[in-house]
Order: sequence, then C-alpha cells, then structure tokens
Amino acid sequence: METIEAIKTRRSVRGFEAWDVSDETIVQVLDAGRWAPSGLNNQAWRFIIVRRPETKIDLSELTDYGPTVKNAPVLIVVFLDRDHMYHYVKDVQSIGACIQNMLLAIHSMGLGGVWLGEILKNREMVNKVLGAPESYELMAVIALGHPLSKIRSSKRKELNELVFREKFGAGW
Amino acid sequence: METIEAIKTRRSVRGFEAWDVSDETIVQVLDAGRWAPSGLNNQAWRFIIVRRPETKIDLSELTDYGPTVKNAPVLIVVFLDRDHMYHYVKDVQSIGACIQNMLLAIHSMGLGGVWLGEILKNREMVNKVLGAPESYELMAVIALGHPLSKIRSSKRKELNELVFREKFGAGW
Repeated sequence: METIEAIKTRRSVRGFEAWDVSDETIVQVLDAGRWAPSGLNNQAWRFIIVRRPETKIDLSELTDYGPTVKNAPVLIVVFLDRDHMYHYVKDVQSIGACIQNMLLAIHSMGLGGVWLGEILKNREMVNKVLGAPESYELMAVIALGHPLSKIRSSKRKELNELVFREKFGAGW
Repeated sequence: METIEAIKTRRSVRGFEAWDVSDETIVQVLDAGRWAPSGLNNQAWRFIIVRRPETKIDLSELTDYGPTVKNAPVLIVVFLDRDHMYHYVKDVQSIGACIQNMLLAIHSMGLGGVWLGEILKNREMVNKVLGAPESYELMAVIALGHPLSKIRSSKRKELNELVFREKFGAGW
C-alpha cells in the first residue's frame, strides 16, 4: 500500500477474526518497528510477543480493553529499556515512532491493529506477568490480527487549528 | 512509494538543494502528521512553519546543527500543547508517531528531512524566537527540502537483540 494512503486510512482495529498470524508476518511488523529513527540511534525499544492464551488472559485482567487483549491472535508488548536510555523525552518519542511504523506495516499488509495505552496504569503488574525487569518501562501494547469487517471512521482537527506561519498566532 | 519500503529506506537528510518546497507540499506533510493516532484522539501536536531566512538564522544559533537549520528551505517546529495534554508519556509518544508520519510522507514524495532533537536544550529560546507561549513545549524541529544526492546508510540492531517470545529472557 502507498505510504500516504496507509497513513490516512489506518484505523484502530479492536475486533479480530479467529485466524492466526504467522511468525513471518510478526517479523515483518517488528522489522518495520526497528527501522524507526531514535536519538543517537540508541534503539531503546524492546518487545515481548505474546501468543499464549493463558498469558493473554492474565494481561486482559489488567485493562478495561480486556476483550481486545484476549481475542487478538498476537500482542506486541513494547517497552523502553531504561538501561539503554539517553534522554527520556526523546526516547519516548522514538518509541512512538516505532509503534507508528508497526501500525502502518500492519495496516499496509491488510491486517489490523490497535495501540493500547490504558494498560500503562498497571505497568508493574504487566512486567510481573511477563517476567520483565524493573528497567523495562511499559510503553504500550499493540493487539493485532485479521480485522473483523466493519466501517471504521475517525476525525482530525483541521490544519488551521494546528499550524502557524512563521510565528505563533499567525494563521496558516 | 510503498509503505514498508518507505519505512526501511528513509534516512536522515541534512543537506538540501537550494530549490524551494511549495506550500502545497508542506500541507501534504502536515496532513500526514495530523493523521497520527493519539490517546483519546486528543491531537496535542502544534506546528510552526518557518521559511524566513532571518528566523532560520536565529534558530540556527540555538543548535549544533546550525548549517542544516539555516540551509533547509522549510522547518517544521513541533510542539506539545500542554493545555491540551491528558497524559504526558502518551502525548509525547503520539507526537513521535506524528513526526514519523511526516518523515515518511517527506521521503515518499522524494524529498528529504531530518528530525532534530538536540535543539531541545534551548527550548525556552526557541519559544522566544517564535513567540510561542510557555504552554507550548518544544518537541522537535524537522528540517526538510530536496535532498543533496548522497549515499546514506544506517544500521539497526538485529531482532534477536530486541525481541522475546512470551516472556522476558526467552529468545525469539
């Protein structure tokens, strides 16, 4: 799929068909993620791939989006490895870029995914379930799979609400 | 350009031809940015577009990457509007996603851009130059233009350094 089309047509997909997703596809998604830019190319993103139903059930109890977590064939749990950090704000931004790469890759392959952030409220518990050390700071969970057919619309602010020309206050 | 190809072939471009970039192109880039996902769709990103040479010179004095800032036809200065924030970490991530969308759009249109973060060390001064209020937290500057022809290589860690299967410590 063409890049700008993928950017504009990507939607959050929270319902999935029962079909599985191959390891090969997961690798393509992770590969897109690791090609994100990061400050000093420090690549502080780390991933745990969850497929086991028992683990999904444990994670589903830590979020209000339990059904999505339980029913997605694959979860990509994304962490910031604080032992490889160099600047918190820039590292967090780069992980946002990495997640976006993965969401675009997922969508461009005809799959669907959703970026789950609400589960961060229970990040210590997520680490416990996954055996992740304290230095791994939970950043997001991406649930992905084959999307249930559904019309998904979304809206964005107009550019004139967001953009100034040359100086703050000068309309675009 | 195809999405996964764009993700993998995007490189930081720091040298630009003297040719200008049209407003229409800038709008396409910003449009890609605003279609990023954000928590509760709060879209806390804000942009100031800088083209004036005097402003570029003022900004170039606030970073070690002065030549890039001075010579780029266009700068997109990206802020987090703290008055529209809902969760700092998630908002910063979403701005990373927004920046990545713009970098991918730039690359897919045959232009080049670079994500500049080092200038954050002088963010108060950047706000002063641009007349931006305190509630606007500088997130990055994107310099863009027509890339000088050059081979640009980059490297990433292998997936087996980044990914675990089911639990921390279990190799992919």
